Amino acid sequence: MTESLTKPSDKSGMRPGSLVHVGEVLESETRMTVIDYSKESVEQTQFQSIEEILKYKDCESVTWVVIEGLTGVDIIESIGKNFGIHQLVLEDILNTHQRPKFEEYDDHLYIVLKCLLSEVEPFTVSYEQVSLLVLRSFVFLFKEKTDDLFQPVMKRVNNSKGRFRSLGADYLAYAILDTIVDQNFFLIDSMDEAITTLEDSLIASEPTQDTLNTIQKLRRDIVSIRRHVSPVRELMTAMLHCESELIDQKTHIYLRDVSDHAIRVIELVELYRDILTGLLDIYLSSVSNKMNEVMKVLTVFASIFIPLTFLVGIYGMNFEYMPELKWKWVYPMLWVVFFTVPVVFLIYFKRKKWL
Amino acid sequence: MTESLTKPSDKSGMRPGSLVHVGEVLESETRMTVIDYSKESVEQTQFQSIEEILKYKDCESVTWVVIEGLTGVDIIESIGKNFGIHQLVLEDILNTHQRPKFEEYDDHLYIVLKCLLSEVEPFTVSYEQVSLLVLRSFVFLFKEKTDDLFQPVMKRVNNSKGRFRSLGADYLAYAILDTIVDQNFFLIDSMDEAITTLEDSLIASEPTQDTLNTIQKLRRDIVSIRRHVSPVRELMTAMLHCESELIDQKTHIYLRDVSDHAIRVIELVELYRDILTGLLDIYLSSVSNKMNEVMKVLTVFASIFIPLTFLVGIYGMNFEYMPELKWKWVYPMLWVVFFTVPVVFLIYFKRKKWL
Amino acid sequence: MTESLTKPSDKSGMRPGSLVHVGEVLESETRMTVIDYSKESVEQTQFQSIEEILKYKDCESVTWVVIEGLTGVDIIESIGKNFGIHQLVLEDILNTHQRPKFEEYDDHLYIVLKCLLSEVEPFTVSYEQVSLLVLRSFVFLFKEKTDDLFQPVMKRVNNSKGRFRSLGADYLAYAILDTIVDQNFFLIDSMDEAITTLEDSLIASEPTQDTLNTIQKLRRDIVSIRRHVSPVRELMTAMLHCESELIDQKTHIYLRDVSDHAIRVIELVELYRDILTGLLDIYLSSVSNKMNEVMKVLTVFASIFIPLTFLVGIYGMNFEYMPELKWKWVYPMLWVVFFTVPVVFLIYFKRKKWL
Amino acid sequence: MTESLTKPSDKSGMRPGSLVHVGEVLESETRMTVIDYSKESVEQTQFQSIEEILKYKDCESVTWVVIEGLTGVDIIESIGKNFGIHQLVLEDILNTHQRPKFEEYDDHLYIVLKCLLSEVEPFTVSYEQVSLLVLRSFVFLFKEKTDDLFQPVMKRVNNSKGRFRSLGADYLAYAILDTIVDQNFFLIDSMDEAITTLEDSLIASEPTQDTLNTIQKLRRDIVSIRRHVSPVRELMTAMLHCESELIDQKTHIYLRDVSDHAIRVIELVELYRDILTGLLDIYLSSVSNKMNEVMKVLTVFASIFIPLTFLVGIYGMNFEYMPELKWKWVYPMLWVVFFTVPVVFLIYFKRKKWL
Amino acid sequence: MTESLTKPSDKSGMRPGSLVHVGEVLESETRMTVIDYSKESVEQTQFQSIEEILKYKDCESVTWVVIEGLTGVDIIESIGKNFGIHQLVLEDILNTHQRPKFEEYDDHLYIVLKCLLSEVEPFTVSYEQVSLLVLRSFVFLFKEKTDDLFQPVMKRVNNSKGRFRSLGADYLAYAILDTIVDQNFFLIDSMDEAITTLEDSLIASEPTQDTLNTIQKLRRDIVSIRRHVSPVRELMTAMLHCESELIDQKTHIYLRDVSDHAIRVIELVELYRDILTGLLDIYLSSVSNKMNEVMKVLTVFASIFIPLTFLVGIYGMNFEYMPELKWKWVYPMLWVVFFTVPVVFLIYFKRKKWL
Repeated sequence: MTESLTKPSDKSGMRPGSLVHVGEVLESETRMTVIDYSKESVEQTQFQSIEEILKYKDCESVTWVVIEGLTGVDIIESIGKNFGIHQLVLEDILNTHQRPKFEEYDDHLYIVLKCLLSEVEPFTVSYEQVSLLVLRSFVFLFKEKTDDLFQPVMKRVNNSKGRFRSLGADYLAYAILDTIVDQNFFLIDSMDEAITTLEDSLIASEPTQDTLNTIQKLRRDIVSIRRHVSPVRELMTAMLHCESELIDQKTHIYLRDVSDHAIRVIELVELYRDILTGLLDIYLSSVSNKMNEVMKVLTVFASIFIPLTFLVGIYGMNFEYMPELKWKWVYPMLWVVFFTVPVVFLIYFKRKKWL
Repeated sequence: MTESLTKPSDKSGMRPGSLVHVGEVLESETRMTVIDYSKESVEQTQFQSIEEILKYKDCESVTWVVIEGLTGVDIIESIGKNFGIHQLVLEDILNTHQRPKFEEYDDHLYIVLKCLLSEVEPFTVSYEQVSLLVLRSFVFLFKEKTDDLFQPVMKRVNNSKGRFRSLGADYLAYAILDTIVDQNFFLIDSMDEAITTLEDSLIASEPTQDTLNTIQKLRRDIVSIRRHVSPVRELMTAMLHCESELIDQKTHIYLRDVSDHAIRVIELVELYRDILTGLLDIYLSSVSNKMNEVMKVLTVFASIFIPLTFLVGIYGMNFEYMPELKWKWVYPMLWVVFFTVPVVFLIYFKRKKWL
Repeated sequence: MTESLTKPSDKSGMRPGSLVHVGEVLESETRMTVIDYSKESVEQTQFQSIEEILKYKDCESVTWVVIEGLTGVDIIESIGKNFGIHQLVLEDILNTHQRPKFEEYDDHLYIVLKCLLSEVEPFTVSYEQVSLLVLRSFVFLFKEKTDDLFQPVMKRVNNSKGRFRSLGADYLAYAILDTIVDQNFFLIDSMDEAITTLEDSLIASEPTQDTLNTIQKLRRDIVSIRRHVSPVRELMTAMLHCESELIDQKTHIYLRDVSDHAIRVIELVELYRDILTGLLDIYLSSVSNKMNEVMKVLTVFASIFIPLTFLVGIYGMNFEYMPELKWKWVYPMLWVVFFTVPVVFLIYFKRKKWL
Repeated sequence: MTESLTKPSDKSGMRPGSLVHVGEVLESETRMTVIDYSKESVEQTQFQSIEEILKYKDCESVTWVVIEGLTGVDIIESIGKNFGIHQLVLEDILNTHQRPKFEEYDDHLYIVLKCLLSEVEPFTVSYEQVSLLVLRSFVFLFKEKTDDLFQPVMKRVNNSKGRFRSLGADYLAYAILDTIVDQNFFLIDSMDEAITTLEDSLIASEPTQDTLNTIQKLRRDIVSIRRHVSPVRELMTAMLHCESELIDQKTHIYLRDVSDHAIRVIELVELYRDILTGLLDIYLSSVSNKMNEVMKVLTVFASIFIPLTFLVGIYGMNFEYMPELKWKWVYPMLWVVFFTVPVVFLIYFKRKKWL
Repeated sequence: MTESLTKPSDKSGMRPGSLVHVGEVLESETRMTVIDYSKESVEQTQFQSIEEILKYKDCESVTWVVIEGLTGVDIIESIGKNFGIHQLVLEDILNTHQRPKFEEYDDHLYIVLKCLLSEVEPFTVSYEQVSLLVLRSFVFLFKEKTDDLFQPVMKRVNNSKGRFRSLGADYLAYAILDTIVDQNFFLIDSMDEAITTLEDSLIASEPTQDTLNTIQKLRRDIVSIRRHVSPVRELMTAMLHCESELIDQKTHIYLRDVSDHAIRVIELVELYRDILTGLLDIYLSSVSNKMNEVMKVLTVFASIFIPLTFLVGIYGMNFEYMPELKWKWVYPMLWVVFFTVPVVFLIYFKRKKWL
């Protein structure tokens, strides 16, 4: 089954409200980066404990804290304490089986969604949960793995001269969401490639049970992708309708853009689902056609030779009184029959388009 | 059929408003436990009659009454009388064919839902109806069986020093609901296992009618599970939108969490439904492929040997005038033919990928 | 087709507003009963003309008028005139092809729905339309047949000492609706039985075209049942949302209960629909498996004997120069071959699980 | 394809706002009738030019103008000018590829819908577009053909003494809509008949490709009917929600009735769609069963005679050393075998229910 | 895959807000036309730089700027600067993978949709993205290709004496939208033709794998068309509900008309989807029937000749004691059998409708 299905229930029965990491551990250590920027300056450093970033708390500047790897439960607890994050949010950050959602609290917003990463050969999808905590001038980003997913955003912060750094934490959140949603287009490209390969193999060669298994695998992947992608639509809608002052009115236009992309992704996923269903039909019908062809070969052979065999059987009988046996021209005549019958049948079958 | 389908109508035609137990009796005797707790103290005892718990009625402390087994109609009647519960609610508690629902009354809330329990080998699901009555400082819990389902919650009440015991009856209700909903994840784990087993057997060996029956059984189980699980979503929504002062505003956040879990369960159930439909496709196509293979074997044999049999039939004829019969080299030549024809055919079939 | 599909259009093209009975006549004569009750007294009599019941019009007591058989057009016309019922309502009462609906008028409520009656062996469903007119202290009930459907309600009115008789016309309407909706559970029981029988026969014996016809018949029954049952949900919702003062606030709780039952019926019907679709899959796949089995038998026979027949054909040829014919050990050797070949094939087919 | 699909785009690319007839011309000449009625008097005449009816413009009486045949573009243009009808409405009247819709303008209402006419043997559906313009005391009715569809309504106007003629233009509009919607029930009756015939032929005789084509044709008809019928529901809803004073409050109850009928028609159409899908299943499965039967016959023959043929082949060999050939009782024994083997096989196949 | 699926993600990961052309380049150079018109005068010229059109900015007249080809990024940037267009809108214009949408800004409206162009033989669909910027007295139209799509609208502007030129920019926008939406009807005509051809070939001749591929191709085309067409409905709704004063109240009626056409297109697309699904059913069933026919031929041949071959095999045995061999009448008798058996079988198969 897909990653998020195995052991989704590690915590069930436990006291709600206890902070534990739930889900597969993808990274054993935690890498923490902080980027503090204002229009004038940028500062990017790695840090080890939450105390190091508390100094940014009273600045006007926007502070982006990236925490990669979710094993440092104490760090998350400490963030919760220092920034007044609700206990359930902290639990949700640590539980990597979340459904994409947006939650509005008095002084922070919580966004969680899945980043979908794909590999081409063979086509596989992996999921990474990304949680965002948006405060007035702080954005906390929690990821499962240490990878370079958000390098482009970091570069933009570092290189931007004007616009980006003059905008608030909400614009940063937008840039992050945009990156995650647009990541899906890469996934869809890979999927497109996988499906095209499958399609070609379906038309070119004989369908095998493997083809079916691949179709089935892709269908399941799509079902799983859809499950992770479609709630993003609601998430964006909820975000657009939320009236928190943490999101500036100007940022709405950008969020609407992300929302449009999300809808497009969902529609593309649906499209591929339809295409795969079509491929399954082609596969099944192609199996059927194959069998039809096999049957025709059998029938052609049997129809031609079974009557002839009967004929030669007749003159293999040992009756004493069989006058034909003595007639000279019967045997050559039979040879004429042996050649005529198949020709007649072949013409007949040709007409019926069996050959 | 599933448990809740047989005899759902024992009571139809009867006077609405009469208290009778409707449904299969799962437990012949009733076990009653009361846990009274406040921030300072906890007290847990078994009791026999309702009078024993009336003393808690005027306390500030939260009183949790657990009634396991639904045969004690008089007890439920007496609770109704002493705590002013609506007659229809009492009937619903006793009728174990309820649809999950939430009802708001002036001074009590009524919640009923199904707890889904599963066994792994073979995968079976059983249903237990759980009713909750939430009053200002009382929570009544009615179960069909005496089991340890809520032991963890009881432990938390007993062991909690701070938070839990300082919160009201609504938080207790939340903890109970959370336990029931999270129970579903265990079920889904079992189902995952059953489906994986099925999948492996489908790929490994020849599909049998049994495989189909198993797929069919699982599909029916899922239909039945979905029927019990999907109303939980509405239930939670209704609860979140209810404006009763019996639910504290702070508890809403927790209920939202339960609601999220419920949605996730429903989505997982849908996912498995899709997967099972896919398995059915694989099964059917695999039957088709098998038949194709059988046909190919038949056709290969028939195409090779039927013409040859005809050939030998010719020279088994007893005509007097058959000059070939006297030629010495014909017989060896025929042996050459006997070996060449199959080889040619085999190459031909190999090319057509029939072998 | 089902009863309500034949001739649904008897009246189309006619002047709207003319009172005629539309639909199949199920009962040629009309039986009219009136039950007048208040807390203190009950009075039940048969009557012949509307004038006899006009005396109850000014009483405080609740008057329940039951009219069984819809041929007495003049009676309905006279009720319309005497109690100020809208012309369209009168037409609807007489037209037994109504869709379940609830209509609110200034001083009366009109409810029409189908009562579903079933027979077990063979499973058949019949439909009876029941119309309810609820006035301040009058309830008119129109049925198509004279049967004992509402005997239990009548008994309750007669026997009740306290509650029932002290409640108004709206509670009586509730009791009637409750009886009709709960009647569906009997139907579902019968359907359950029919499906279980079908299921058993499907597993036990070879599927026949009959099995398919039964499945198809049941599916159509379910489609038809669903058509009659699902509008009841809207009907109840409309009733719950109506603000007519003819329905007491207290009765709402009871109506909500009926609504719950209606939803449960609809869900059960959906469930059986899914189960039947599953049975169809099993049926089709079982036909496929059967064919597969037949093909295997054919192939096993053909593969073993066709080559051997060819072999014996060789030595049936009449060539003069066939040295083997004179070798003594060839014939016994062939017998060895005759036994070895089948054994080898059988082992091979066994391995391929064809046997 | 259905009538309304061919050349739907005659006008695309043209200047919007030009009056041309779009669609197939069903009637080459235009018949115009005017009926002016008030409580006291009725007057029905044929007319040739719009000027003749302008005199009714200032009367209190209701004037019903029926225009059959849409080739008289100038007449429609002149109506538009004289009665202040919006240009787009005039275009819509002339374009017979309209979707059913209701449009509210300041001083007129525009209703367009399809009237569905059917023929029984073979079942065919034809569509006629009917446009209604409702003004204060005028109703314009535009039809494509000159037929007797609205004769019943005309008769009612002529014969009515009281009610009809005392009501306004909105009631006339209702009577027309009612006639059109109820027309659908005739259609459904014809469809019912066609489907029943199909069903009988499916059960009675061997399914042919023709049966499939008929099923397919009916399915397409239903798809097309549904397309024309389902927007009527929205149309009626829009009409019921419109607040134009052109529709009297009292007429609402009548419109609600038409709306109910429209919903019933839609539900019946859906029902027949389900039934046809079921018939397709039966058809396909019946083809499958037929093939199964054919295979069984083949297998029975082959299993019995192939081994026996092998047997007789053995003793047709010409070996010099075949001691059995000289034993007198072998030949009769073989005859015993020839009779025993088939009997054994037949019993075996009987047991397997193949015969 | 379809044009809009390949490389949809060229820009993902890039800084949002940078102006680059995303999508396939369909036209390497840009053709720019400006039409300025008022009631009195029209002026149409080609231009090279934005400066040339700035002079119209302060006129009362409506200015229509048509930009064909999207490679001139600097032109679009310059339009953005000079007319105060939002950065995201400019990006969207350049990205030809847009979903149809309508966006309302303070002083301009942005509309983007796909124009669907079709070719008949073979049926192919191509997509061109059209963006509209509507300002108070300016309309910017951005197209991917230089073609004559909007020639009719230009002609109407040039030739109109009264109405068109006296109406504002919003009416021009309507005329453009109308042209794009009505273009779809041509597409549907082509599709109709393609499907009719397919249908005829399906009925006339033997179905081939090609037929299936064509069905599949058409289904995919329809899926893709639907994806581009169905958002137009929302777009029009959004436009109708927008309260911008850039759209005059009078234009609403015209937009509603476009909306109706859009809905009709969507319904027709759905209809063809259903028809194609039906064709697939016919195809599959026709393959099945074909196989059935093949099997029957085989079975007829085998059933007739296999028993007869066995019979002649008997008298081909070389037993010394076979009295029949000496009886004179046996051989002629056998010939009678040889003719009788097939006749009997043929009659039998005729009765079973196998022939």
